[in-house]
Amino acid sequence: MPLRLDSAQVDFEQLFAGLLGAKRESSKDVNDAVAAIIADVRARGDVAVAELTNRFDRTSLTPDTLAFGAEEIARAAAEVPDHVRAALQTAHDRIRVHHEKQKPEDHVYTDALGVTLGARWTAVDAVGIYVPGGLASYPSSVLMNAVPARVAGVGRIAMVVPTPDGAINPTVLAAAQIAGITEIYRIGGAQAVAALAYGTASIPRVDKITGPGNAFVATAKRQVFGQVGIDMIAGPSEVLVIADSSANPSWVAADLIAQAEHGAGAQSILVTTDARLADAVEREVDRQLSLLPKQQLARDGWEELGAIIIVASLDEAAGLANRIASEHVEIATDAPEELVPKIRHAGAIFLGHHTPEAIGDYVGGSNHVLPTARSARFASGLGVLDFMKRTSLLGCTPSALSALAEPAVTIAGVEDLDGHGRSISIRLNR
Amino acid sequence: MPLRLDSAQVDFEQLFAGLLGAKRESSKDVNDAVAAIIADVRARGDVAVAELTNRFDRTSLTPDTLAFGAEEIARAAAEVPDHVRAALQTAHDRIRVHHEKQKPEDHVYTDALGVTLGARWTAVDAVGIYVPGGLASYPSSVLMNAVPARVAGVGRIAMVVPTPDGAINPTVLAAAQIAGITEIYRIGGAQAVAALAYGTASIPRVDKITGPGNAFVATAKRQVFGQVGIDMIAGPSEVLVIADSSANPSWVAADLIAQAEHGAGAQSILVTTDARLADAVEREVDRQLSLLPKQQLARDGWEELGAIIIVASLDEAAGLANRIASEHVEIATDAPEELVPKIRHAGAIFLGHHTPEAIGDYVGGSNHVLPTARSARFASGLGVLDFMKRTSLLGCTPSALSALAEPAVTIAGVEDLDGHGRSISIRLNR
Repeated sequence: MPLRLDSAQVDFEQLFAGLLGAKRESSKDVNDAVAAIIADVRARGDVAVAELTNRFDRTSLTPDTLAFGAEEIARAAAEVPDHVRAALQTAHDRIRVHHEKQKPEDHVYTDALGVTLGARWTAVDAVGIYVPGGLASYPSSVLMNAVPARVAGVGRIAMVVPTPDGAINPTVLAAAQIAGITEIYRIGGAQAVAALAYGTASIPRVDKITGPGNAFVATAKRQVFGQVGIDMIAGPSEVLVIADSSANPSWVAADLIAQAEHGAGAQSILVTTDARLADAVEREVDRQLSLLPKQQLARDGWEELGAIIIVASLDEAAGLANRIASEHVEIATDAPEELVPKIRHAGAIFLGHHTPEAIGDYVGGSNHVLPTARSARFASGLGVLDFMKRTSLLGCTPSALSALAEPAVTIAGVEDLDGHGRSISIRLNR
Repeated sequence: MPLRLDSAQVDFEQLFAGLLGAKRESSKDVNDAVAAIIADVRARGDVAVAELTNRFDRTSLTPDTLAFGAEEIARAAAEVPDHVRAALQTAHDRIRVHHEKQKPEDHVYTDALGVTLGARWTAVDAVGIYVPGGLASYPSSVLMNAVPARVAGVGRIAMVVPTPDGAINPTVLAAAQIAGITEIYRIGGAQAVAALAYGTASIPRVDKITGPGNAFVATAKRQVFGQVGIDMIAGPSEVLVIADSSANPSWVAADLIAQAEHGAGAQSILVTTDARLADAVEREVDRQLSLLPKQQLARDGWEELGAIIIVASLDEAAGLANRIASEHVEIATDAPEELVPKIRHAGAIFLGHHTPEAIGDYVGGSNHVLPTARSARFASGLGVLDFMKRTSLLGCTPSALSALAEPAVTIAGVEDLDGHGRSISIRLNR
């Protein structure tokens, strides 16, 4: 049974706080193991990467076979049926068009004193994209990471995707092909992150690593942060559906199930002003789960981590949404745009009855890499800006420097940095 | 003696690679100690924060005296001379005006299919600013962290600044006052980061932590990343001066010294097309160092980590600049704007002979929190965007959903996520 709360009940605050604090990730202490793997890859390079991959993925790679060959990629991609390739192409094209609109513009201006100030945006040179192997090997994730990088102007994209027991996912390679990725390595885990961050003889280092992974991958990304840039540390996926009496209980139920079927800590929460809708959704989830081919994962997820919360108003729902700061928020009302300004913390908001979250996972055009585990309080979904950086520009005329010298030298003085002050004053004594 | 290289020498690549790879940070293994401190603060809250602070900073705080009182702040700030306060106010105002221009705009549009897509920017609710105590306790850093947060619309800013041996830096409190910060705690180290990230009875948790610190602070930030957002992991400061024969050797020398006086691994590099300028700068550094009141730190830094590199052309200088990816790049030529487009990796670029880097540290208006240790390859300086996050919006009409259903359901199928596909198809069978 999912948790069921009413915001009017006396112990609501306590139970809601429990829901917020629920531990959803297995936080095994993998720090030391990962540190050892990174050190090994730094010391022994390709040989360590091959050995570690063979051990963890039961493969038989050598330094010479870490990379996929061009023909191998083409052959695997060719196995993908035409309608799947067409669907991936549609997704690719829509993601590309939307992300083109995220490209920042340089802005340089000169102020009244004669100081030139500005920002210049440039692309990261080389990016590594981590794609999980096995169960969670998603071609859509390849597109969601690669397309913003391409749009940003990243020159080199290196993809790593482990092949447990040698199994290759042809759809993932087809997605890479559509995204224009030609450099692909059949490696994963902390050793792949280490190889991307520090480079080996056969894998040149990158400047930034993005993409989701298991606890080893997340810990490795945390450890190499600084040596390279990383995106967020991804946690289990989650959806919050806000619904009033206008919502269709079958549709809401389907969306809750779609999230729960990710398993591994994925969480579905319904917040509604309508207790009858809550009842109907709960029944519908049960009914629809029984129709799902692989229902156990979704059922376990829903029963363990699912929640239904009755509230007095949509405003109250928005207040809870801000405290939950969910990765995905669906607004299943007739006038979703009225609630949007009240929701400050959310990775993505899905508007109205006809926008299931899953459409955003694939072909909506927006990015499906979004902040999880309440990190929407401070983080954004993946986008073009994640693959660019801003260089600030500053230029003084002699008169601007004269005008600013006194306060600058004063502050340098109180900071006990005389050399700073002198680098300014020396220019005034000409 | 600083390192002196000529790009024409046969072993240049090897020596330049050595310069790039020079280890400038003491990477003590503080991971375990920091993890223990964080666990202690999570378990015992204010009591742990007070105990740890008393131990490391030789103070005698209790949970009741962690926070500065309003009168205490006012009293300390009143000690600051008027001309210093005026200088800080000038810096504050110029930083504010420039950062106002960084505020992003929301963008929502509907495409030809009838899909609404967009981005909404909102401020982070609560930010913690770490200000180091002791030697590197800089009022300018208070402004550089607080002003962008204020401009972003952050509602609550909590500042922590340790007071080793009970010593308070009044200028730091004056800067906080000018920036409108009223919540200030006299704590530091990993325990301050833990308190900000997880909250205690007297210190409510924040959503993001910014600001520089020692190895314990940097490690703590790395460990709490995910629970809260963090800015970059700051390393030693660095400057790269690109100069041709038009440069004034005294001014270039002063700028190299200004960087070196930070000590603690700070690095100054001159790249020039003019060997005679190189000689003159080297002599000038020596001469000016002898005039500096506290010359030893700067002299040690320059002799240990300084470098002068002779190149054949400014284009070659730009190429090296991109490999060094320096925090600060000065272009000491008559036409700096011609070189700017060729420099892709730099935290900030300072244009021309009359823009010493130090002007940007204080009153230029741009931010002085910039990516160090080659991280300009993937990171930007601190700005308003660091205190905001983007929520994406997606909305489908019934016809847009119908048009997109087939490719979405197809990809859900190959990803083995039937519930995803059903959440779309169930909306088509009305």
